[in-house]
Amino acid sequence: MAATETLTAERILEATEEVLRRYGPAKATVVDVARALGVSHGSVYRHFRTKAALREAVTERWLERNVTELRPYAEGPGPAAERLTGWLEHLFALKRQKAGGDPELMATFQVLIGENSAVVDRHVEHLVAQIAAVLADGVRDGVFAAGDHGVTATARAVFDATDRFHDPAHAADWAAPGIEDDFRAVVSLVTRGLRA
Amino acid sequence: MAATETLTAERILEATEEVLRRYGPAKATVVDVARALGVSHGSVYRHFRTKAALREAVTERWLERNVTELRPYAEGPGPAAERLTGWLEHLFALKRQKAGGDPELMATFQVLIGENSAVVDRHVEHLVAQIAAVLADGVRDGVFAAGDHGVTATARAVFDATDRFHDPAHAADWAAPGIEDDFRAVVSLVTRGLRA
Repeated sequence: MAATETLTAERILEATEEVLRRYGPAKATVVDVARALGVSHGSVYRHFRTKAALREAVTERWLERNVTELRPYAEGPGPAAERLTGWLEHLFALKRQKAGGDPELMATFQVLIGENSAVVDRHVEHLVAQIAAVLADGVRDGVFAAGDHGVTATARAVFDATDRFHDPAHAADWAAPGIEDDFRAVVSLVTRGLRA
Repeated sequence: MAATETLTAERILEATEEVLRRYGPAKATVVDVARALGVSHGSVYRHFRTKAALREAVTERWLERNVTELRPYAEGPGPAAERLTGWLEHLFALKRQKAGGDPELMATFQVLIGENSAVVDRHVEHLVAQIAAVLADGVRDGVFAAGDHGVTATARAVFDATDRFHDPAHAADWAAPGIEDDFRAVVSLVTRGLRA
């Protein structure tokens, strides 16, 4: 990679992801990242003060890609019920794709996720906020009820109730026969539970 | 233990659970079980033909205790909606108790569960059948709808939608502050989704 390109945080994070993919989370070092970029490790440390900060940032970037992908469902336009189903289907598809398409990278990020629980908590908050936005639109349009616990708690309940289809702890189930039927049955139960 | 007592399968399973608790799943042997019972290992093998068969039977016994505990909710009497909530609350309580009360034994059974996926599948079927029995009563009484996918698929959806509160993969969350609120919000969403 040309060292003459401006060294941005984004370029460092891209290279870090690639280094993690290649060497695994136990062996990847900041020196490996610097070498991949053709820069000194001091240049990397000017953007990320510690190895831990770099690993946290790459974890956040990896997780938050989902939030970007799901934004069209969260923001609309479109009927709230369809957007919610679309959001859940798209999240399940993204997760299956990550788990099935590149199991080594998935395993790597499972290690990073274990190290960075605060990043995961923030990420879950972002996803729950997207669900809450759809629910609020549905309540406004009279198709959803706010629920006994308010929109945010109900959004969290939707996220929790569908966790078999997005939590990496369940990734081993995602290639099982019948998993799509199980998914549709849960989505149907949940959307019925939201009806005004 | 007195070797003169009749050596039953149940006594062997009790002793096996104790031996597993003491030595862990990697080290526990059939000889340890025989020694704990004061019998020869041949006597144990007359009841369980292989070590694998013994481990499978002890796993099944451990899991199926939940089914016995939950039977009053499954069979009634009582209104279906209350029985369903009671069943879900009781299962969550049993799981938290196992995870919090004896983490070593829980870890041991996590290993055994990993070895015996057919036992786990049968156990899940038994639990789903209990939910289905409650749903069928609710449909008969006009308080639940059968759902778009039929009673058994809906029962499975109820089981899946609440898995954050019974699947050992989520055991680390069960002592978190707010977990009871999360549980109640999911149960509320699910029971609303079942309404006729």
